[in-house]
Amino acid sequence: MAKTNRGRFFEDYRLGEVIRHAVPRTVSGGERALYHALYPARHALYSSDEFARSVGLVADKKGAPLDDLAAFHIVFGKTVPDISLNAVANLGYAEGRWHLPIYAGDTLRAESEVIGLKQNSNGKTGVVWVRTRGLNQRDDCVLEYVRWVMVRKGNPEAEAPETHVPELQPVLTADDLALPAGLDFSTYDFELAGEPHRWGDYAIGEQIDHVDGVTVEEAEHMLATRLWQNTAKVHFDSTARPDGTRLIYGGHVISMARALSFNGLANAQMIVGLNGGAHANPCLSGTTIRAWSEVLDKAETAAPGVGAIRLRLVATSGGAPFQLKGEDGKYLPEVLLDLDYWALMPL
Amino acid sequence: MAKTNRGRFFEDYRLGEVIRHAVPRTVSGGERALYHALYPARHALYSSDEFARSVGLVADKKGAPLDDLAAFHIVFGKTVPDISLNAVANLGYAEGRWHLPIYAGDTLRAESEVIGLKQNSNGKTGVVWVRTRGLNQRDDCVLEYVRWVMVRKGNPEAEAPETHVPELQPVLTADDLALPAGLDFSTYDFELAGEPHRWGDYAIGEQIDHVDGVTVEEAEHMLATRLWQNTAKVHFDSTARPDGTRLIYGGHVISMARALSFNGLANAQMIVGLNGGAHANPCLSGTTIRAWSEVLDKAETAAPGVGAIRLRLVATSGGAPFQLKGEDGKYLPEVLLDLDYWALMPL
Amino acid sequence: MAKTNRGRFFEDYRLGEVIRHAVPRTVSGGERALYHALYPARHALYSSDEFARSVGLVADKKGAPLDDLAAFHIVFGKTVPDISLNAVANLGYAEGRWHLPIYAGDTLRAESEVIGLKQNSNGKTGVVWVRTRGLNQRDDCVLEYVRWVMVRKGNPEAEAPETHVPELQPVLTADDLALPAGLDFSTYDFELAGEPHRWGDYAIGEQIDHVDGVTVEEAEHMLATRLWQNTAKVHFDSTARPDGTRLIYGGHVISMARALSFNGLANAQMIVGLNGGAHANPCLSGTTIRAWSEVLDKAETAAPGVGAIRLRLVATSGGAPFQLKGEDGKYLPEVLLDLDYWALMPL
Repeated sequence: MAKTNRGRFFEDYRLGEVIRHAVPRTVSGGERALYHALYPARHALYSSDEFARSVGLVADKKGAPLDDLAAFHIVFGKTVPDISLNAVANLGYAEGRWHLPIYAGDTLRAESEVIGLKQNSNGKTGVVWVRTRGLNQRDDCVLEYVRWVMVRKGNPEAEAPETHVPELQPVLTADDLALPAGLDFSTYDFELAGEPHRWGDYAIGEQIDHVDGVTVEEAEHMLATRLWQNTAKVHFDSTARPDGTRLIYGGHVISMARALSFNGLANAQMIVGLNGGAHANPCLSGTTIRAWSEVLDKAETAAPGVGAIRLRLVATSGGAPFQLKGEDGKYLPEVLLDLDYWALMPL
Repeated sequence: MAKTNRGRFFEDYRLGEVIRHAVPRTVSGGERALYHALYPARHALYSSDEFARSVGLVADKKGAPLDDLAAFHIVFGKTVPDISLNAVANLGYAEGRWHLPIYAGDTLRAESEVIGLKQNSNGKTGVVWVRTRGLNQRDDCVLEYVRWVMVRKGNPEAEAPETHVPELQPVLTADDLALPAGLDFSTYDFELAGEPHRWGDYAIGEQIDHVDGVTVEEAEHMLATRLWQNTAKVHFDSTARPDGTRLIYGGHVISMARALSFNGLANAQMIVGLNGGAHANPCLSGTTIRAWSEVLDKAETAAPGVGAIRLRLVATSGGAPFQLKGEDGKYLPEVLLDLDYWALMPL
Repeated sequence: MAKTNRGRFFEDYRLGEVIRHAVPRTVSGGERALYHALYPARHALYSSDEFARSVGLVADKKGAPLDDLAAFHIVFGKTVPDISLNAVANLGYAEGRWHLPIYAGDTLRAESEVIGLKQNSNGKTGVVWVRTRGLNQRDDCVLEYVRWVMVRKGNPEAEAPETHVPELQPVLTADDLALPAGLDFSTYDFELAGEPHRWGDYAIGEQIDHVDGVTVEEAEHMLATRLWQNTAKVHFDSTARPDGTRLIYGGHVISMARALSFNGLANAQMIVGLNGGAHANPCLSGTTIRAWSEVLDKAETAAPGVGAIRLRLVATSGGAPFQLKGEDGKYLPEVLLDLDYWALMPL
């Protein structure tokens, strides 16, 4: 088995090293169509070349960009063989920023810099922080985010590295967000976009129940997770877990919840920042995913007609909306995802 | 829940109003490939750019058009949030006409004009007739059809509108059909198309058992229905119906039956007219869909080598072919679909 | 039922006849994306336009080629209605050669020449050998292979044809393989490709356990098999076999095993030769497919930096790796596939 990748263990990471992930990926209209088949995605900017053009995004003969989360999943997928093959838990995200929309014809690859290491007191596991960058064929950074995971040690006797916990922004400010070049919502067509609610119509603290639900199937989450070239065994191999279930890739839940949030947030068109996120409970096939959102903050931007809105997006497997944690401060068992992101919306 | 779309109720429609549906959609080779993955579609004109070119359809650098039913599903899907979210039943179709093939790169949107209203005697529901038009990025009408649905009233006390039942053609004549510009079947390659049977070989009254069957799965019909951006809950949410089943989108059955009809009608290449259709019984996952056809009429056309054939296409969940209704005049329980359409075929 | 295709029976084949198969097929980024959604395919040359360019494959504005097995499945699928609709068993493959990579925009069709016939002693079946060629829109042969199948006689009284068993090469030599024009692995990026192991690192006789497994679902294999326009009933119709199971297309197992072999053979980039293959046992939904490989031979080639490696690829439904046959010389029940192919690899 010398030639197969057993993944990295905690002691294999060095602070400051940059891991160049394998298998670059070119996207086309195929990935775009599949995204729409896998999720009930309806944000007009990603559905229509004409709509994207009308808000200043399409230059030359390019069509609309691919969904921001498709970019995220592709970059994330590249990191799995090097970062999370031996991960015990995906602990968090921070400082996620989308720098450039991605278009059919773009080729993405990824690099991760190890920015933090901390062995756990049990001596068997440790936490690894990486800053991952997605790069296109021109080596422009299209996306970056920090992620930290708990990783097993391969050799329990391996010496603990010096602890370094990176300082991370708990929340990006609106000034930290990259605004896509040319974006202009001043002549935005609300009717074609699907809802009349503009940035000014949302109040901080407002909660929105997205009402709809989607029951997920094994074939679907595996199609998605393979499309993103995510190789984690637990998503595909029903013999990998003692109970015979396949764990659904957390990103599948993110995309499903984001797509469901169209109903009430149809104009929160582009995701540009990721402040944090927790995969609160595992999601299995047969679950009916529902979603609700809460407006956490709002800010103006320098782009014409464009406001920024900070949203909590919660995916659940049922229960009443707007319930997140129990009296013990822990996520309720029906909460699947608690995501904190910035989106761009017409004023 | 003020920001989510609860759909329109019967009293929300006004005779003559035009509803501009949301979320335009650009299609690519991705939608075309998915259509072939979702249905056993083999009509050569949609499978091969070269075949489409050989019958005069491909100008410039365009490839073959997308399946006519893909165009129908996309346009139909756009109308769901405005027309059928609170529909109790999909009652019928009429005067469906395909005006232009759609190609990779085209962006479709849809508009519906309310052409009829009739409150039911129970006072709780009413029938709404709409004429829906699919428009491309140049605002050309690519497709139109009339559809009527029974819709719940939101407020049972709402006053009944004046009844207006539109006059509809029970059947389109061959003269009503749009012939795609340039279409020429005079050098049609029957061998590449897959069957030797030409227009002249079919007799009015002839019945064809398409022999093959496809057992349908939850993941497949959801992928398809999402791809068409159809948002009706019952197709996706296993908690929406008391028995925990998901209702398969009627259009999925139409496409499956049409694809199965290749075996015996491989040369009925293009659908150009829809005279009527009934979703006779619901279709659920696990059903093995079969199909049979009956030749209802034939007509010559002005295009070189092109004949029109009017077909009944029946999808079933089993039983003997050619059985449609019981002695009570009602559809047999195994009949899923009874569709009446015009197709173009080489003479 | 006169108009439907009942398939050919043994007595319908004539030695030397060339069958021109129906339904040409144009591929796009859609087929490429679907291939990546259906299989955990990660070979960089097919995943990235940039990687393909870096090894000399992409001329003009073309992107990376489609997976070699996608080409194989499309060509194979075309042959099913004429060759294997009444086949009792798929007996073998030989002399398979990939002559040209296929790219988005290419249109494939297929022809098969009957090169052997032998009625079985029971008088009810016979073996048909065909040499199938896949042709692109310029009538270049992109792929050819010999396949033999056991086919039922339609009329048991039909006279036996003269027996002709073709002479086939048991194994292609490296000189028989076509090297893609321009292919140059001399500046190959092993890091981006995903593994450091080069041609020189593999020893004849070496065995590799590919470690990962994928549990397969009905929806997935049907999506794949439809995409290749393979019409064999047993893959789709759960009423076609007495036990209600659907038989998974053998090519689905080939592609799954080949994709799994990335882990340990990431640099065996292109398949260029098929020496033989056996679908040792049927594969059903719910099976967790695993794979192992054995290096059978190695050879140098005339292309810069390019070596050829002959591999046995075995797919299993479990059990220990590297076990193939029992003491009786028969395949073990957990062996699904035993494939013998040539691939190209950086020196």
